[in-house]
Amino acid sequence: MPAKVLIAGTWRDADSTGTFQATNPNTAETLPAEFPISSWADCDAALAAAAEAAVAMRRLSADQIAAFLECYADKIDAAKDSLSEAAFAETGLAKSPRLADVELPRTSNQLRSAAASCRSGDWAHATIDTATGIRSCYEPLGPVCVFGPNNFPFAFGSVSGGDFAAAIAAGNPVIGKANSSHPETTRLFAELALAAAEETGVPTSIVQLIYRTSHADGERLVADPRVGATGYTGSRNAGLKLKAAADAAGKQIYLELSSVNPVVILPGALAARKDELVDEFITSALMGTGQFCTNPGLVLLLADDASEAFISQVKERFGGTAAGTLLSPAVATSLKSSVETLCGFGAELLVGGGEIESGRCALANTLLRASAEQFLANPEGFQTEAFGNASLVVVADNLDQLCQVIASLEGNLTGCVYSDPNGSDDDSYDAVAFELTPKVGRILNDKMPTGVAVSAAMNHGGPYPSTGHPGFTAVGIPASLIRFAKLTSYDNVRPGRLPALLADKNPTGSTPRRIDGSWTTDDVS
Amino acid sequence: MPAKVLIAGTWRDADSTGTFQATNPNTAETLPAEFPISSWADCDAALAAAAEAAVAMRRLSADQIAAFLECYADKIDAAKDSLSEAAFAETGLAKSPRLADVELPRTSNQLRSAAASCRSGDWAHATIDTATGIRSCYEPLGPVCVFGPNNFPFAFGSVSGGDFAAAIAAGNPVIGKANSSHPETTRLFAELALAAAEETGVPTSIVQLIYRTSHADGERLVADPRVGATGYTGSRNAGLKLKAAADAAGKQIYLELSSVNPVVILPGALAARKDELVDEFITSALMGTGQFCTNPGLVLLLADDASEAFISQVKERFGGTAAGTLLSPAVATSLKSSVETLCGFGAELLVGGGEIESGRCALANTLLRASAEQFLANPEGFQTEAFGNASLVVVADNLDQLCQVIASLEGNLTGCVYSDPNGSDDDSYDAVAFELTPKVGRILNDKMPTGVAVSAAMNHGGPYPSTGHPGFTAVGIPASLIRFAKLTSYDNVRPGRLPALLADKNPTGSTPRRIDGSWTTDDVS
Repeated sequence: MPAKVLIAGTWRDADSTGTFQATNPNTAETLPAEFPISSWADCDAALAAAAEAAVAMRRLSADQIAAFLECYADKIDAAKDSLSEAAFAETGLAKSPRLADVELPRTSNQLRSAAASCRSGDWAHATIDTATGIRSCYEPLGPVCVFGPNNFPFAFGSVSGGDFAAAIAAGNPVIGKANSSHPETTRLFAELALAAAEETGVPTSIVQLIYRTSHADGERLVADPRVGATGYTGSRNAGLKLKAAADAAGKQIYLELSSVNPVVILPGALAARKDELVDEFITSALMGTGQFCTNPGLVLLLADDASEAFISQVKERFGGTAAGTLLSPAVATSLKSSVETLCGFGAELLVGGGEIESGRCALANTLLRASAEQFLANPEGFQTEAFGNASLVVVADNLDQLCQVIASLEGNLTGCVYSDPNGSDDDSYDAVAFELTPKVGRILNDKMPTGVAVSAAMNHGGPYPSTGHPGFTAVGIPASLIRFAKLTSYDNVRPGRLPALLADKNPTGSTPRRIDGSWTTDDVS
Repeated sequence: MPAKVLIAGTWRDADSTGTFQATNPNTAETLPAEFPISSWADCDAALAAAAEAAVAMRRLSADQIAAFLECYADKIDAAKDSLSEAAFAETGLAKSPRLADVELPRTSNQLRSAAASCRSGDWAHATIDTATGIRSCYEPLGPVCVFGPNNFPFAFGSVSGGDFAAAIAAGNPVIGKANSSHPETTRLFAELALAAAEETGVPTSIVQLIYRTSHADGERLVADPRVGATGYTGSRNAGLKLKAAADAAGKQIYLELSSVNPVVILPGALAARKDELVDEFITSALMGTGQFCTNPGLVLLLADDASEAFISQVKERFGGTAAGTLLSPAVATSLKSSVETLCGFGAELLVGGGEIESGRCALANTLLRASAEQFLANPEGFQTEAFGNASLVVVADNLDQLCQVIASLEGNLTGCVYSDPNGSDDDSYDAVAFELTPKVGRILNDKMPTGVAVSAAMNHGGPYPSTGHPGFTAVGIPASLIRFAKLTSYDNVRPGRLPALLADKNPTGSTPRRIDGSWTTDDVS
């Protein structure tokens, strides 16, 4: 029997058009559990229940929603072992430290941060203009569909990750579409979420889970009138189809699609600490077998001996390091294909490439090289994302050419610049950063891009096509919540009818509100 | 000779595919000035110049950009007579008070507010997290195309209005596409803007002006890689075509499309002050010949004698009031057609309708009536926007039915609820507001929707299809600026390289910044 879907607060048989199974990437064996491919009838039922839950949630207090998130976070912490076991089987990611000790606490803490923001209302930008009698804040938008990615089964999971936390904390129910590579892990999370909903008395349809639909039904789902918005993290191709469907219906969709995350290393940085930079790069590039959204897939260097030495050391280390396991057969196939594509455009294969390992989803650590001249002749081609343990090094003849390469880049999540700690690169830095900053959501100095701190100042976002809108972040609370909100002005609305956030009295005593132009936690005087 | 276009800081002959002339709606006569329809070559040249200006603007200080806006505002005030004269000829709107004494000062003050926000940086949500070393703020996005509407030749003008002010204050150059019904007015504004640019030393391509393009070139323009975003206010049909083009290219487009602005009048309000409500409604509905985005086009009443009396008094007053002039022959034709469409769906024509006046763009003040039952049988049809001096009254049998009508509404900019000042309607209010609030960008009590204050708490926006994104406002500073910005995080960026807004020292001494979770104007300690 295939697994049941979670619709309207009940685990029930799917109205299915077929089934699928995940693969254990460490053994390349199909896992036994079967999961249903839902028909439109399941989507429709989930939408109907979500629409009802959205109405019911508008009658809840912020405290009630926050209590649900906190209860769920506690249950996740308590289920650490079973969650890590399931995710290990489905993703090949190490149980420890990665899953149990890094990603899991990040996930539960993210839910707690979202709960805190929900409770305080700091995300809602409460604005009060006493002279005109107008008050405004962000409010829930309606049911949010979340399509989680393959690479963070916990922290970006459809019913556990950042989009989920943000959508719920902003007051919306979530319809999770599990990533097909880790359905059992997602199912376990949904069980915990349902238990938390029951325990805290919020509508049980606050979270629903389906595992897979046809592409057509996915497009219909994100465009449905009952949907408020969608969060999608995954491949560019599938994401753009969902975007087209949502856009045509006037529905918001927040996408995280692809990014090669350029890393520029200037000569003074190499002169000062080349060996350390090799270490930092190797660690960042191969961490999680390179399967991070912010993996440094493109290294930009200026032609000189130190750059050659850097390349040669990285090549040696790539070759001498066992390849990690990739998340799924599809990831391995796609990585191999991207490497071949880059070679087809003329990139030189320095190390790696070749065939997928038999008996495991893995490809040798791969380093490619191209000249800036080659890159500039085909910038689109050389920006082919090779998701996994592969990076492309591009060597420019001079600073102007380096800046041209940067100017030819598409939008990216991140851009890093390493420069001489003693200032010899400062003019080059200015030129590089001036070109790079408009292309990226986050610019880093002297640091690799793979760490994505959950910070109020984090932007895990960036210009298209890294995401669909350059003004929003998927990570970082409270900012990530406003993606799933509508702005509402209350004009001359009688005092007793205002939402708590906009009443004269500060609802918590500590909620930041912009009153007559100044942020304050005071009551309206 | 047709008028020249403003491209790359120079008034030059258009590369035109034809010409057009505006009409004086008060006389139905074609105005003498000819304006070019630009080819793609003009668009391309404007885009190239705007891209250069965007780069140059990134090197300007906030003070320099603010000084340009303020200088321009002063020039607008000084040119009050010529601007009002031109706009009167092209739009039929009264020179005084409307154009010279209401819309013009609103326009220049809006530019000054935008300048103040630019100078202070309060729009940029500077966020500093000292624990992680990450800092973020909104930054300019790139050239902004502005397609202004026909109904506010100053305050929403392509090169003078709210979108222009917001785009420039956020640090972006503007390519204005004049509304074809008032090209000469727009040309005069562009002259003043160019003079202000020259006087204050900002790039002269900060503002460029073309008058009209083919539909295909318009779609190509908003999708061009050099564009940052587009602001469009106008008809739903044209707007959705631009949206499709921009969406497919991953470009932001902020749309204001259509809205019927439901006004619910509950029995206790009619009992308390029916005659005043008739006055308020008439004023709001016929102001500017009903050609406001927030015109009350749909009145929802409960069946009783007072509602009948209200309708009958409004009918009498509509019939007894001379129809104002409409903005253009197209508006008159469209209004007549919408009235006929509504009648075709079964609405009863209480007064008005008929033929367009000869010798003037005008249609009699029109009041239509339908039952809630009729409305619910065809909600899409009965929400046909009749832009101009026409309103539809819908009478519901009971509160439940009234709420069903509200639940069937599309997204609107505004929703008003009038209720008994003494509380007899309070339960009904709760039911109505619960349905209405999610449908609108601004909810009002005891007040008509036509005033749109420039307030930090204003939301001139709303759910689709009133706009394209429910999280943004087109009016209200500083919030309107972030539409034209990207979020950028600075992660571990060395202190001397941070933008002024994110430096340890507060750049103005009074810029609000969120430091470690608290809004403050202090320096980082």
